[in-house]
Amino acid sequence: MSMVLTLVGLGLNDERDVSIRGLEAIRAADILYLENYTATLNVDTNRLERFFEKPIILADRDFVEGSAEAMLEAAKTKRVACLVVGDPFCATTHSDLYLRARDKGVTVKVIHNASIMSAVAACGLQLYRFGETVSIPFFDGGWKPVSFYEKIQKNRENNMHTLCLLDIKVKEQTVENLMKGNNIFEPPRFMTVNTAIRQLFEAAEMQGDEGVASILAFGLARVGADDQAIVSGPLQELLNADLGGPLHSLVLCAPELHEIEQKFVSLYSARNSVHTE
Amino acid sequence: MSMVLTLVGLGLNDERDVSIRGLEAIRAADILYLENYTATLNVDTNRLERFFEKPIILADRDFVEGSAEAMLEAAKTKRVACLVVGDPFCATTHSDLYLRARDKGVTVKVIHNASIMSAVAACGLQLYRFGETVSIPFFDGGWKPVSFYEKIQKNRENNMHTLCLLDIKVKEQTVENLMKGNNIFEPPRFMTVNTAIRQLFEAAEMQGDEGVASILAFGLARVGADDQAIVSGPLQELLNADLGGPLHSLVLCAPELHEIEQKFVSLYSARNSVHTE
Repeated sequence: MSMVLTLVGLGLNDERDVSIRGLEAIRAADILYLENYTATLNVDTNRLERFFEKPIILADRDFVEGSAEAMLEAAKTKRVACLVVGDPFCATTHSDLYLRARDKGVTVKVIHNASIMSAVAACGLQLYRFGETVSIPFFDGGWKPVSFYEKIQKNRENNMHTLCLLDIKVKEQTVENLMKGNNIFEPPRFMTVNTAIRQLFEAAEMQGDEGVASILAFGLARVGADDQAIVSGPLQELLNADLGGPLHSLVLCAPELHEIEQKFVSLYSARNSVHTE
Repeated sequence: MSMVLTLVGLGLNDERDVSIRGLEAIRAADILYLENYTATLNVDTNRLERFFEKPIILADRDFVEGSAEAMLEAAKTKRVACLVVGDPFCATTHSDLYLRARDKGVTVKVIHNASIMSAVAACGLQLYRFGETVSIPFFDGGWKPVSFYEKIQKNRENNMHTLCLLDIKVKEQTVENLMKGNNIFEPPRFMTVNTAIRQLFEAAEMQGDEGVASILAFGLARVGADDQAIVSGPLQELLNADLGGPLHSLVLCAPELHEIEQKFVSLYSARNSVHTE
């Protein structure tokens, strides 16, 4: 009886971002899951399977939120590892999974890795100055939840930066397919920095706020990858910046910047075109 | 001419926390530095040298803040990698180094890794609810800087958690040795959760604040290591909790906790003794 579930953080980009410690846990596992609902890597599952020399069971939204029972049951007798993009604890889902495992007498080991929550510092803003992190969901017709906007305002009032995590839609179904019980899923959608800014402007307008367009911000794409892109400037200038493929993140600067932070704003200025490493 | 300096994040604990991507950069490097001023691993440099099969040049405070020139000069003709505990961008020092390298025409590549700034979520508090991060410095006689206390108050007013990074003194000299120019250094000092809480109480008293002792908090030690310890409870209960060796971190909870967060407070309660994994 091993009674251990190991949550292995995969980091930000591809199979080479796993740690040696993580790789050892993966190689030692009898069963390997991949949680691919809250985030995605820049590589597909086949490539991970080849690299880890092991078949991977995909754990999607239904699985993790609804019925991770099978995984936890398996962990009672087998060595089970669950791969998580980024760091295992940076998504709420996994805290819940942790507690459920403990309830079943399964010990959970966590192998940490880079998360966008800390790697965002690559833009040059000081990490300790970030306030509450917000998530910007896709507006959908009349459904326009704007609670993220109030949190951004609060951070700015406290002279803090704000990391905005942008929505990901994986394994979504059309209403028609859902009603008919068709097992057909839409292609994944990843919110761009541009869409995030458009929605931010909409939220500001709903609140009657002006001056939002001139807030300094950073757009980040594929942080940590060889083709990482970072661009900075007032929101209105970033509105049409092309950062390429997913994943994108948006950072709104605090009203006051330190000297080093200001230098990074200049370094990555959209006026000098988008910077890739 | 390679003109590339690679900053390699080492993660939280030992040589096995480096990523495959990081290991490749280290193996390919002609010269290898280790920055050991802003944080330290739980292993010594010899062990890193054996694992990486390469000699390591130690870059301490003087080196990184004063004269990283040699490293940057070397990067103009050789492949230079600089190892950084945690994630390269989580300390201000490295943003500065990044800019200086760019000024010299040296491209900087960054290999991200886990940082305490994100791994702190292991305590079960939701990472997105953390406000500004504070650093608690060792009080030294009459020198009692308490600006950290105001930031904690601000976070609590905004219903945010606060991560407190605890002071590390590496390569410090006594005034006598400094005056005499003796190259003798004091043993490293790492602030414990207990000292941090004592200083916090002192800061509160200076402000005439009451009720601080009942604030819920988490003490964390050696996050991500096999002997990681996490303990929770009101500050007064954590005051004498024994979390073992360094590194320690302290987290003050927001006044209101979510249901899952409350469960983690119970799980790690000091009343049930200190928890190690």
